[in-house]
Amino acid sequence: MRRLLVIGIGAGNPEHMTVQAINGLNRADVLFIPDKGAKKNELADLRRAICDRFVTNPNSRRVEFDVPVRAEPALSYLATVDDWHEEIAGIYERLVRDEIGEDGCGAFLIWGDPSLYDSALRILERVTRRGNVSFELEVIPGITAIQALAAGHRMALNRIGDPFLVTTGRRLTEEGLPGNATSTVVMLDGKCSFQTVSDKDAIIHWGAYLGTPDEILIQGRLGDVEDEIVRTRENARQRKGWIMDTYLLRKPE
Amino acid sequence: MRRLLVIGIGAGNPEHMTVQAINGLNRADVLFIPDKGAKKNELADLRRAICDRFVTNPNSRRVEFDVPVRAEPALSYLATVDDWHEEIAGIYERLVRDEIGEDGCGAFLIWGDPSLYDSALRILERVTRRGNVSFELEVIPGITAIQALAAGHRMALNRIGDPFLVTTGRRLTEEGLPGNATSTVVMLDGKCSFQTVSDKDAIIHWGAYLGTPDEILIQGRLGDVEDEIVRTRENARQRKGWIMDTYLLRKPE
Repeated sequence: MRRLLVIGIGAGNPEHMTVQAINGLNRADVLFIPDKGAKKNELADLRRAICDRFVTNPNSRRVEFDVPVRAEPALSYLATVDDWHEEIAGIYERLVRDEIGEDGCGAFLIWGDPSLYDSALRILERVTRRGNVSFELEVIPGITAIQALAAGHRMALNRIGDPFLVTTGRRLTEEGLPGNATSTVVMLDGKCSFQTVSDKDAIIHWGAYLGTPDEILIQGRLGDVEDEIVRTRENARQRKGWIMDTYLLRKPE
Repeated sequence: MRRLLVIGIGAGNPEHMTVQAINGLNRADVLFIPDKGAKKNELADLRRAICDRFVTNPNSRRVEFDVPVRAEPALSYLATVDDWHEEIAGIYERLVRDEIGEDGCGAFLIWGDPSLYDSALRILERVTRRGNVSFELEVIPGITAIQALAAGHRMALNRIGDPFLVTTGRRLTEEGLPGNATSTVVMLDGKCSFQTVSDKDAIIHWGAYLGTPDEILIQGRLGDVEDEIVRTRENARQRKGWIMDTYLLRKPE
């Protein structure tokens, strides 16, 4: 039976790698490396550096593959994602069937944790449903940008005994700050959606390139620091060619 | 200046330790080990095993200390927690002042991640406010039970583009499943609060001793599996003398 590992490799600091992830990398005969194109070259380099540093298995090969770009939503967001995932499922199916021997082991390397706003597990479910190749799946958790954000700001995510919500920039814009959680973590926000929050007394803890030497942290009252975050973010994005950022919003006490 | 590391050591599998956490352990001259008493002896043993396996610094000492038991809430939950944290702050203050040299480095080892339903960071803020000893604080993130739960069930925490809520057993009982998130992760639940959820068509993904050889996973329609979870949990708790569990509840699609 083929074995497939889906390994969380952390939020950008190679030292986020767990012992379990390092051992997983070295159990695999083949490492699948998505090439997300020129725009995020530094991220691809970082992933290669992680492999170079931690892979000691002399029989390990790397297979790079192209990830199709998601179309702009024509009908609905979910329908577009559905088409896109089906296309990637075809690619994953071929990788598993053609690149992993019948008793071999392959691994996908996932930024952060495979369970958090990542599609690999869902796409592999599709591959299983298609029924053309079978494999045993094992998931290895990784440090997420949420934890790196909290560590950078040296803060807890929740207030004592309180819930917190993890959401996306899109949903924050549509729904505002939730009524049932005093703390909200926002991921996947390319548009500085915190600007749409009407309560400017909310406290924001923002971070980019978390856990790396380029880490930037800004915190304060939303009304006081939102312009500074927008400006800092845009300057950093232009300088490096890419940015990954996330933030926590908290209602005033 | 004294330096203090607050290190996330993962959810119970020693291989959850990150390279950053291992390096942190070895930068510290002194490791502070809470002794939570006889009830959770196996957890204390596991923490010692993590130190034994990963600490290579020959100058490292361990200082075990007693953690006072939280009183039963007399007035309000928050007031009780406030008194309790103040008492622990006194203990932390003495540890930092008396056990770390003026240019030394100490470390607290925290199960899971220091940012998630853990009080160490808040208590250290109190120590800073009291002003009797100063120190530089550094936080090292760790794998949480939430990530171990998702890895065990090989699932994503969120539905595509959807938010998810992280809450406590107490709040689930008081508030029910939230309206604004299709997925809810419940932590700190000693009372099987999923039984109070009225929508028995919800899907539950439950796990105990996550990431360890004793891991137990149960999933299914809440109405079909809730009794099995209660029974399994109670048997395991009696057999081992302690249990740590968490779960995800998801509204039916």
